[in-house]
Amino acid sequence: MTTTRNTSQTEDASCEGRRRGRPRARSDEETRTIIYEAARREFAARGYAATNMESVARAAGVSTKTLYRLIPNKAALFEAMITERIDRFASVVRLRACEGRDIETGLRNALLVCGELILAPDVISLQRVILSESDKFPDIAETFFRKAITPTQETLASWLRTQAKRGLLVIDDPDGAAGMLLGMLALQPQRAVLFGHAPPPTREELERRVAACARLFLRGCGASTRHPEAP
Amino acid sequence: MTTTRNTSQTEDASCEGRRRGRPRARSDEETRTIIYEAARREFAARGYAATNMESVARAAGVSTKTLYRLIPNKAALFEAMITERIDRFASVVRLRACEGRDIETGLRNALLVCGELILAPDVISLQRVILSESDKFPDIAETFFRKAITPTQETLASWLRTQAKRGLLVIDDPDGAAGMLLGMLALQPQRAVLFGHAPPPTREELERRVAACARLFLRGCGASTRHPEAP
Repeated sequence: MTTTRNTSQTEDASCEGRRRGRPRARSDEETRTIIYEAARREFAARGYAATNMESVARAAGVSTKTLYRLIPNKAALFEAMITERIDRFASVVRLRACEGRDIETGLRNALLVCGELILAPDVISLQRVILSESDKFPDIAETFFRKAITPTQETLASWLRTQAKRGLLVIDDPDGAAGMLLGMLALQPQRAVLFGHAPPPTREELERRVAACARLFLRGCGASTRHPEAP
Repeated sequence: MTTTRNTSQTEDASCEGRRRGRPRARSDEETRTIIYEAARREFAARGYAATNMESVARAAGVSTKTLYRLIPNKAALFEAMITERIDRFASVVRLRACEGRDIETGLRNALLVCGELILAPDVISLQRVILSESDKFPDIAETFFRKAITPTQETLASWLRTQAKRGLLVIDDPDGAAGMLLGMLALQPQRAVLFGHAPPPTREELERRVAACARLFLRGCGASTRHPEAP
């Protein structure tokens, strides 16, 4: 595709090759994504107090002017960075909610996406930062709770509700069930990482854990008759 | 009983009524218990770095001489305080492991004791302290992991193993199951407290949560046929 967009804020340089000078060839959306990635690394590595708009701009390779044009201040950056990550997660889970008729495969896929989020090294580092600094900055703990912990659980609860509507699951309390599922999946490995005892699980370890949780949960809900038992 | 013990370290004043001067009427074991309680409050309220042997002695109402006679230094105090709490917890769970033939009631009781430990306000405060200061004192995180988190899970795993031996439960991986059970029970309420979003659950909330976890888990293990279904 060689269409050229020419709005005031975006510029497509891909058809012109590289140019010297400041890169203006990205959409604001792309720039935001780069900023959030940089902010995630900065907050996780330096902590909340020690991170400032200038250091994030530098790490993202954008000017502070661009950063302030897109995001007004550090608190907003912190919240937007979290929201962007959770939105990506939620849309993956939502998109897959109506795939397939095999509830066990479906639940495994959903839990795998949850585990990849909750047990990601940067997410765990961010939690350690928040818990360390929440005495001085109680707002960041509340932001993380409202914008990360609650929506993650709601996303899984909504997935469970969809499966119940599809007739694949009978469930009384999807919110409570989602909290229990996330706990089964994440408490043990998350604490091992938080307390410096073990690295995050490998993909294979996560898949094994996800499979055990899905099987226990589905049998617990009385949904295990729809699929053959694992050996 | 009016027997009078007269060892170098203990003195029974109960038969002589109250006396003025320094209280020497306690056994070392009782004094240790008082010291651990004081240490628990001090560490949770002030943090690890700001707590010292003198402040704990003062809070416990003992002389620093007595404190140093019983416990050599702050790191040992920190570890002993944790170990004492976990030992009490483990002996309660162990003592009850062979009571009754109703696996659901038994599991509820065991989980209730686990929940009372993991979700106790001082235990959660202590975790926040540890996570805040683990950059400077990585040993305290490792101590908490080895002396609190691991033994808690092992205690529940051992309880599950006992039930399997008694023929009340079929279970492949008691350690994994214990980790999942603790996660189902604790992740959601623990995070709400850690992130300042909610107070610890009330006794009634904990009992409801415990009941839901026990039922889901036992049905998940295929053990639900031994007791009548709840309505």
